[in-house]
Amino acid sequence: MSDPFGDRLTAIFRRSGQLCVGIDPHAGLLDSWGLPDSAAGVRDFGLRVVEAVIGRAGVVKPQVAFFERHGSAGYSALEDVLAAARAAGLLVIADVKRGDVGTTVEASADAWLTPGSTLEVDAMTAVAYQGLGSLDGVIDRAQRHGKGVFVLAATSNPEAFETQTAMRADGLTVAAALTAGVAARNGQGSPGTLGAIGVVIGATVALPDFGLSAASFTGMPILAPGFGHQGARIAQLTELFGSAADNVLVSASRSILSVGRADLAAAIDDHVRQVAACLA
Amino acid sequence: MSDPFGDRLTAIFRRSGQLCVGIDPHAGLLDSWGLPDSAAGVRDFGLRVVEAVIGRAGVVKPQVAFFERHGSAGYSALEDVLAAARAAGLLVIADVKRGDVGTTVEASADAWLTPGSTLEVDAMTAVAYQGLGSLDGVIDRAQRHGKGVFVLAATSNPEAFETQTAMRADGLTVAAALTAGVAARNGQGSPGTLGAIGVVIGATVALPDFGLSAASFTGMPILAPGFGHQGARIAQLTELFGSAADNVLVSASRSILSVGRADLAAAIDDHVRQVAACLA
Repeated sequence: MSDPFGDRLTAIFRRSGQLCVGIDPHAGLLDSWGLPDSAAGVRDFGLRVVEAVIGRAGVVKPQVAFFERHGSAGYSALEDVLAAARAAGLLVIADVKRGDVGTTVEASADAWLTPGSTLEVDAMTAVAYQGLGSLDGVIDRAQRHGKGVFVLAATSNPEAFETQTAMRADGLTVAAALTAGVAARNGQGSPGTLGAIGVVIGATVALPDFGLSAASFTGMPILAPGFGHQGARIAQLTELFGSAADNVLVSASRSILSVGRADLAAAIDDHVRQVAACLA
Repeated sequence: MSDPFGDRLTAIFRRSGQLCVGIDPHAGLLDSWGLPDSAAGVRDFGLRVVEAVIGRAGVVKPQVAFFERHGSAGYSALEDVLAAARAAGLLVIADVKRGDVGTTVEASADAWLTPGSTLEVDAMTAVAYQGLGSLDGVIDRAQRHGKGVFVLAATSNPEAFETQTAMRADGLTVAAALTAGVAARNGQGSPGTLGAIGVVIGATVALPDFGLSAASFTGMPILAPGFGHQGARIAQLTELFGSAADNVLVSASRSILSVGRADLAAAIDDHVRQVAACLA
């Protein structure tokens, strides 16, 4: 087995910084890149992003729905992109937001987190509308295989607020209870490293509104989408996450990808510099 | 465009009854059927279930994670199963539990609900941890294409309870608010038929605990897993759902599939009879 996910993520943070580059080949971007809206187009798009990230940042996050949109051929394209990214030593997070119970959710973990699967990645995103316990099969498999899981907790989209701030019978908000449950299953490997099981926190949320604070995330990796395109500025990273800013994987997709193929490398370099400057 | 999903579902209910047969090729079942745990195995499994359902029931529900477990080859197998089911006139519900925001969730809807997609089905399941509004792109596409959506509301697994009964600021539980939101976007086609947008309600939940009652589901299709394997007896259908029992798609998977290949047709017939007897 490889090193625990948290160890590997911590090493990447030290070596390459905390930027995660999204791979979101939606129809509009394919068009602006001069690529066809097809399985071949999403393959080309993904491989070009991977190529540009190598040597510049350490983590990529393919948005799987944009590959699934092209059926089994799209999944085959995704397999090629995943293989290229992992062969280059990039850490790969599949943004799949899977959630279910029992053998079904175990099958999702088998697909994404099992060594040797054609869809093998380093970590996946997951959804716990059916309770964090419904994801036991995913968390167990992640820890067994040295993989990671990011569970959606507090997200940026405004229509999420009422659900994620709803109050449970135990007096915790849905988002805070999930985060506490994740903390209890943190899966830390070596001392001083991040754990393997983390949360997704939108970069534009006000943590106190969800009953969360920087202390909620001790030792926990945080995947934070919403920088750039969705309104949060990277310079606000420490303002948003306080002392937990060191745990944040700063995810940027549209703000990098929308510059087009020619300027991609420069946009990645620029984002890496912004993140590093903010955390210095 | 084909007739609205609710019209088609209502017609199926009248002609073939309210049973939905799950297609859940998990490793244990493949083994007991004498099939390999591979893409070829899940293809064979799915095609045999479809063949057995034809002429006996009207709806099948492939559990997509069991196909995804085999990567792009598994998705290719799924495409064959979906094509066989739809060519035979069965209504097909992809149990995918997709949920996200913006162009991402629209991409999921493009995959499953767009006419001509290799993964095209009649309806998909969806998750609204990010709020029902996050699924607008799915609901809009469903209504545009005559397709259906079933949003997870109250599920059977015990660890879901605290999340789904959490109280929102407006005094509604998470499950009741989602259901009310679905009712508001019901998408009914012809008078006297069910709408296109429904909910998933576990067959073992006590509706009042979630702030729900039969009246919550007026005109709304209900996908109810949990009969058989998970403990609810089909004979309890009217006791569980009251006057909404006529809206329920009674989903059974393990209790049918576990009898093995030889007795599959008889098990389907038996389940159809039980559902019909209960609703007579």
